[in-house]
Amino acid sequence: MQKVKALQADTSDFSSFHQIVIERRTLHPDDVAIDIKYCGICHSDIAQVEGIGTAFQHPVVPGHEITGIVSAIGSDVTEFKPGDRVGVGCFIDSCGKCKYCLAGQEQFCEKGFVSVFNTPDYDGNITQGGYSQSVVVKQHFVLHIPDNLSLSLAAPLLCAGITTYNPLKRYGINGNSNIAIIGLGGLGHIAVQFARRLGANVTVLGHSESKRSEAAQFGASNYEILQDENDFDRLSNKYDFILNTAAVKLDLDNYLKLLTVNGIFCFVGLTMDEQQFNIFSIFDKQGTITVSNVGGIAMTQEMLDFAAKNDVKPKIEMISIDDVPSAYQRILDSDVHYRFVIDMSTLK
Amino acid sequence: MQKVKALQADTSDFSSFHQIVIERRTLHPDDVAIDIKYCGICHSDIAQVEGIGTAFQHPVVPGHEITGIVSAIGSDVTEFKPGDRVGVGCFIDSCGKCKYCLAGQEQFCEKGFVSVFNTPDYDGNITQGGYSQSVVVKQHFVLHIPDNLSLSLAAPLLCAGITTYNPLKRYGINGNSNIAIIGLGGLGHIAVQFARRLGANVTVLGHSESKRSEAAQFGASNYEILQDENDFDRLSNKYDFILNTAAVKLDLDNYLKLLTVNGIFCFVGLTMDEQQFNIFSIFDKQGTITVSNVGGIAMTQEMLDFAAKNDVKPKIEMISIDDVPSAYQRILDSDVHYRFVIDMSTLK
Repeated sequence: MQKVKALQADTSDFSSFHQIVIERRTLHPDDVAIDIKYCGICHSDIAQVEGIGTAFQHPVVPGHEITGIVSAIGSDVTEFKPGDRVGVGCFIDSCGKCKYCLAGQEQFCEKGFVSVFNTPDYDGNITQGGYSQSVVVKQHFVLHIPDNLSLSLAAPLLCAGITTYNPLKRYGINGNSNIAIIGLGGLGHIAVQFARRLGANVTVLGHSESKRSEAAQFGASNYEILQDENDFDRLSNKYDFILNTAAVKLDLDNYLKLLTVNGIFCFVGLTMDEQQFNIFSIFDKQGTITVSNVGGIAMTQEMLDFAAKNDVKPKIEMISIDDVPSAYQRILDSDVHYRFVIDMSTLK
Repeated sequence: MQKVKALQADTSDFSSFHQIVIERRTLHPDDVAIDIKYCGICHSDIAQVEGIGTAFQHPVVPGHEITGIVSAIGSDVTEFKPGDRVGVGCFIDSCGKCKYCLAGQEQFCEKGFVSVFNTPDYDGNITQGGYSQSVVVKQHFVLHIPDNLSLSLAAPLLCAGITTYNPLKRYGINGNSNIAIIGLGGLGHIAVQFARRLGANVTVLGHSESKRSEAAQFGASNYEILQDENDFDRLSNKYDFILNTAAVKLDLDNYLKLLTVNGIFCFVGLTMDEQQFNIFSIFDKQGTITVSNVGGIAMTQEMLDFAAKNDVKPKIEMISIDDVPSAYQRILDSDVHYRFVIDMSTLK
């Protein structure tokens, strides 16, 4: 057992964040201990602190975009050694035996995967996340960070990166693809880079001129402003894949117009609102509506390697641990370009 | 030019059906003339007569589930000879050059396919369908009816058959599939047979006991009655593919519960109602909502050959041409087991 510093929210009020000391378990034979250097802030951290959704409780130590350096390993660990540059994403355990685990889709584990924070692990202890000095994780769930990818930029890839890379790979996006990405925020700005590096022709769909130049910087070939029906009609039947990274309710029927025959509309931006669509918006073109949910460990490693090789870089704003409450509010106000990363050396 | 007998509706009132004489074109070099023996009645015939949808006009000679015998061929026809047993389905022309036509997906032709009835053909003439003594069709759009498939039973396969076979093939339904079919009507009773013959474990989802024994006769392994939330909860995460053949608005979120991880919900039963769903109904399981729209000519021929080889047989009620108005009403009243076929020898 090791005592380490962490940042904890006691209630759904962001001002309840305060530094505490938590305990990390003594290493099991297949465990890796990691000195955390950086942790990204994701909208789903905020949802847990706010208590949106069912699987939450207070107090909570959030954080699921973790990068750092291996400090110690258990006796059976073969894939890591002290000093290795590593990352940890959304989950840290699964049964390892069900068909989904065996297929590398641990996110669908039949026993239920263990989230990196705010979930009972298989021993019944509530997990505590990456807003912390260190963490102990079973080696299967630890990722290698390639040498030419900085630990700070790698952090957001552990959730925002895999969330966008996974659907692009699942649907075979390549040099023949003409795709559109809705939204250019934390997810969208990474999605554009991945899609472009996979060879696709990428259009960013926005609501105003404000993000046109940034879309181009990230690799988008086109930027289209959608304000009224005429805009949707003008772009109808154009994109064979649309990735919606915006967590706002859309006029889905209008966006479905934009799909080509056999086109796919994929949600990664989520809202609690009921979605509406008319079957005839997709009938003639045999369109599809789907959603993507992070990705397995092997796909996450592939994503990190792809990002390193192809110079995919999240654009981040580095903050200190004391800035977390204001950063949360700024995310809710859509005032972040494009992802906050906590410098964990600022933990007192 | 040949004058032939047909049944025409002058208005949206079914009582306006009456027999008339229409003209069929002189054979082009690649045309096949067909003596029509049988024509199925499909719900979309009724929609056109009622004037639901945009691409309709009156008067109309409906019918797109046509079977008969080749009576004459054009000079360039190589695939058919007089006396051949043949069928014609939903469309009778397409550009033949676009990527969809070249891929055998004529239903998505970029120029727009020509429907077998109630649509301008590429010369501007309004097509007239299968409630008729004969028809002239370009050979590419004529199907061979295998010897051991009767012309009367083959008729409904030309629309109801391909509409259900196409999605099963598109999504690779096979001996590893555990699928559910919603509805046991004109589409559903054929879908059950195809899915079973493809090796799937098939459950029919109904609202009452009334169709349990018939579901089993068609090859369903299970029959489940869905009446309230408890039923949906009991069957949650069970089916990797659900084919909805019911043309009624469903509580989509409840049905999405029934999908496994990576499960697919496919509409072939259509309604004009706005559909509603919550993204979180499919998020954890990465589910998909899609629709299927008939199938190309090559797939339709494959379907007919598969049906003949595997003894897939629509269950039909044979009617005379005078029964069409009452048959229409009975379809609207859901009083048909399971598909009406017109005996075209009853045309006076």
